[in-house]
Amino acid sequence: KSFVQASDIQKMHKRFDNFSHKGDFGRILLIGGRGGKVGAIILSTCSAMRTGSGLVHVWAEGASKDVIHISCCEAMVEGEKILDELDKFDALGIGPGLGEVPQDLLRNIFQSTGKPMVLDADALNVLSKHPELWDLIPKGSILTPHLKEFERLTGKSSHHFERLDKASEYAVQHKVYLVLKGAFTSISTPDGKQYFNSTGNKHMATAGSGDVLTGMITSFLGQGYDPLNASLCGVFHHGLAGEIASKTKARGMIATDIIESIPSSFLEMQID
Amino acid sequence: KSFVQASDIQKMHKRFDNFSHKGDFGRILLIGGRGGKVGAIILSTCSAMRTGSGLVHVWAEGASKDVIHISCCEAMVEGEKILDELDKFDALGIGPGLGEVPQDLLRNIFQSTGKPMVLDADALNVLSKHPELWDLIPKGSILTPHLKEFERLTGKSSHHFERLDKASEYAVQHKVYLVLKGAFTSISTPDGKQYFNSTGNKHMATAGSGDVLTGMITSFLGQGYDPLNASLCGVFHHGLAGEIASKTKARGMIATDIIESIPSSFLEMQID
Amino acid sequence: KSFVQASDIQKMHKRFDNFSHKGDFGRILLIGGRGGKVGAIILSTCSAMRTGSGLVHVWAEGASKDVIHISCCEAMVEGEKILDELDKFDALGIGPGLGEVPQDLLRNIFQSTGKPMVLDADALNVLSKHPELWDLIPKGSILTPHLKEFERLTGKSSHHFERLDKASEYAVQHKVYLVLKGAFTSISTPDGKQYFNSTGNKHMATAGSGDVLTGMITSFLGQGYDPLNASLCGVFHHGLAGEIASKTKARGMIATDIIESIPSSFLEMQID
Amino acid sequence: KSFVQASDIQKMHKRFDNFSHKGDFGRILLIGGRGGKVGAIILSTCSAMRTGSGLVHVWAEGASKDVIHISCCEAMVEGEKILDELDKFDALGIGPGLGEVPQDLLRNIFQSTGKPMVLDADALNVLSKHPELWDLIPKGSILTPHLKEFERLTGKSSHHFERLDKASEYAVQHKVYLVLKGAFTSISTPDGKQYFNSTGNKHMATAGSGDVLTGMITSFLGQGYDPLNASLCGVFHHGLAGEIASKTKARGMIATDIIESIPSSFLEMQID
Repeated sequence: KSFVQASDIQKMHKRFDNFSHKGDFGRILLIGGRGGKVGAIILSTCSAMRTGSGLVHVWAEGASKDVIHISCCEAMVEGEKILDELDKFDALGIGPGLGEVPQDLLRNIFQSTGKPMVLDADALNVLSKHPELWDLIPKGSILTPHLKEFERLTGKSSHHFERLDKASEYAVQHKVYLVLKGAFTSISTPDGKQYFNSTGNKHMATAGSGDVLTGMITSFLGQGYDPLNASLCGVFHHGLAGEIASKTKARGMIATDIIESIPSSFLEMQID
Repeated sequence: KSFVQASDIQKMHKRFDNFSHKGDFGRILLIGGRGGKVGAIILSTCSAMRTGSGLVHVWAEGASKDVIHISCCEAMVEGEKILDELDKFDALGIGPGLGEVPQDLLRNIFQSTGKPMVLDADALNVLSKHPELWDLIPKGSILTPHLKEFERLTGKSSHHFERLDKASEYAVQHKVYLVLKGAFTSISTPDGKQYFNSTGNKHMATAGSGDVLTGMITSFLGQGYDPLNASLCGVFHHGLAGEIASKTKARGMIATDIIESIPSSFLEMQID
Repeated sequence: KSFVQASDIQKMHKRFDNFSHKGDFGRILLIGGRGGKVGAIILSTCSAMRTGSGLVHVWAEGASKDVIHISCCEAMVEGEKILDELDKFDALGIGPGLGEVPQDLLRNIFQSTGKPMVLDADALNVLSKHPELWDLIPKGSILTPHLKEFERLTGKSSHHFERLDKASEYAVQHKVYLVLKGAFTSISTPDGKQYFNSTGNKHMATAGSGDVLTGMITSFLGQGYDPLNASLCGVFHHGLAGEIASKTKARGMIATDIIESIPSSFLEMQID
Repeated sequence: KSFVQASDIQKMHKRFDNFSHKGDFGRILLIGGRGGKVGAIILSTCSAMRTGSGLVHVWAEGASKDVIHISCCEAMVEGEKILDELDKFDALGIGPGLGEVPQDLLRNIFQSTGKPMVLDADALNVLSKHPELWDLIPKGSILTPHLKEFERLTGKSSHHFERLDKASEYAVQHKVYLVLKGAFTSISTPDGKQYFNSTGNKHMATAGSGDVLTGMITSFLGQGYDPLNASLCGVFHHGLAGEIASKTKARGMIATDIIESIPSSFLEMQID
């Protein structure tokens, strides 16, 4: 078990040279934001752009397309047929505002790409109801449940130590990274290690905060970070951006403020 | 009768510890924004997010859903069936931009939840026309009329002292908190006390200013403040935020500026 | 003929006391923004809010309603029946993005209210084609043509002095205020006087700049300024806001920047 | 071959006098943003406004109209019939988010106007598939391919020197300016010269960066710059704005940030 600190994080970042083009910064696809929950995928999308992705595509439906264009004109909005072209993406992030979907959607995505992906929110809820999908999750994928989502996945725990043990077991057994969000977010790895994040504060307990994290981790994954570094850098900068934003927003901080402070967290950590 | 000052307000605020999650900061539902008045509920929604709510849901109709997502992507937009699930909310705020609705809407809401709620704008207009609803208002609810709305509710007064007496009577008789908005906003309580707010200025006399207040009081109520503290903290920070905003906006201040200054009012009052 | 300067302007402003409510700051209606030109009325609307109006209503059509709510959530959007309730407004502004309309629209508006109003853009184009409407314009109304619109109204002039004479004649003959926009905007009055504005610069020659001015003058008119003061204060603060914005925006200044700088122009002139 | 520096750029800028009106700053038309790619044309549109255009028109379809109004209320949105009125524009920019279109659209535009225009993105893709259109491109037009688009146009190159030679050949043969975007953007001219840009950095390798450049070059062209100066000033200020933005945004820079920094690039270069 180890406590991740600023000096560790700096080394985990990829460096890009001056001749990098937008393909080098990765092309990702975010899936979610259906029905009345398009706001969640907007937060993930803006967050991924601000974390440095070269190209962010979003799968959305009907009128939601316009909502996304207005909220993040840098993103590309796709129709359903994009599910047949998953290979062209460096990373996928699935779940924010996805709503209830048939398990076949996840099953098909898992089977049509072997690449690690980020699974959050409603995607985790599908997994909770369908344990038969667990071993189909591409190896090295990153699951980002908050406490309640984790409970749905693995049942109630009587205390946090038990919960951490369950997280580690789940990660080892299914060969995934399990990011358990909370006051000290833990990252459990397929080889049984456990990391604890040192950034963030209570003002980040606000609607959409988790959607922002999903965008950040997916972005790093798409930029070519391995899943461990993507997870650690994601939770670290998410927390640091939240700390920076709450200096001026205090209790009034909202998820959008976290996104707006991502660049400042890069500057503070001297990530060029 | 007492004049509320900064030192009183600081003690009225709830403190949250470092392990608080978004549920602790409350889940509220705002009802309004129908037809051509969706702007009003947008202001309440953004205001509630900025006041610290963990989760803000909005009931809106048709195309208004997209308008709300674009204007506040942190909010969740609900359809009509949410009225059958009122129990899951820590507080309700009803009225901004609600338009003309059948009295049955209010009656059903009053009867399906015993929790105090905030009633404003068009919800007050329904109450004015239907005094038979007055005793169904959940005890401890907060009514926030401006002078004209108060007049519709209780008839004309020949001077402001008479109006204050009527406000106190109404609060005592119907066991509600009556926030009478104006130059020195008064808060009348069910036990016959009357408080006067000390913040704010004339530049707050602008469209949507009241909708912002509704969002703030509902937010505090949902965070677990008792109705008196929610009312007093709401009007105090609303006024202070307005004062802060008008330093740079002067006569050009608009309601959105008040919302943007809510965090500064927390910082100035050292509310963490 | 006189050159209007900062010291003159300060005296022309109305002062509001601390007990002013939003009704005192005026309720105005803006008419325009049809078809592909809704952007124009958005600029007028935001501009009027920023100039201090208590309540701004807009008449728009179909999908444009949502566009306006998103762009200025403080405004109220109305349907066609509002034309039967013009009496409830303190001032009207007609024209920005109005598109081609039958002359009867203007005729009906002129005949159903005796109050001075602001006529701009496409409303002026209707007047150009229908001189029979000229004497129906409510006395004291304010026309705000740019050079081309003025030419359509009164024919070509061989030089600017001739144009100024025509402007004065038109104002006297039809008992209106004629604001001829350009490098030194002139204001011709019904009693034959002519004022010249001293603020503004070339960077204000940008799309939508005139729509902003329409919103400002309508706002002052609705706040209870007489038409001369509304015109003079409108063009002065419009120019000053433009000067302030162009300090940081240079040639890249857009109309929205002018609106955002209106509060600074009030602060600079010490208008509380 | 020459390396363009700040001192060269200053002399290439047009100066405007105090009596300039919005017509002097040019009226341009941008064509693109169809289907799921309206974000691209929004970036070009906002960029052109920020570069100093007097009037920016956009051809878009259906619901996209509202998206554009919301994102840039200063722009005018046109329907298909605008293609019959191309003469009234000082410059055209075609391609960002255009999607797949029949070659006849380009052919008709080329044939109905002899004026130089900017061709980018999907317009270049049409040219790649239809070499028979190459000699119909109005003389002096500006093509702005990134490396992949250039490859589609002229085939693969074994190294960058070969690519630069091909660019020069293409420019000479078809009498166009060829802006080959990359780490050191090159500008090849019809008379065989080649210029290299000295501004920009790796953080500009982000979605929509190219759309911003298209808006900037089209804007300068519409302001009356000759195609060489429009190209050189466009790429220079695009790069400088990116450098300025990345000081505060680092790796988190997005295309919108580049647009927001255009005014600062004018101020830094003392372009009034």
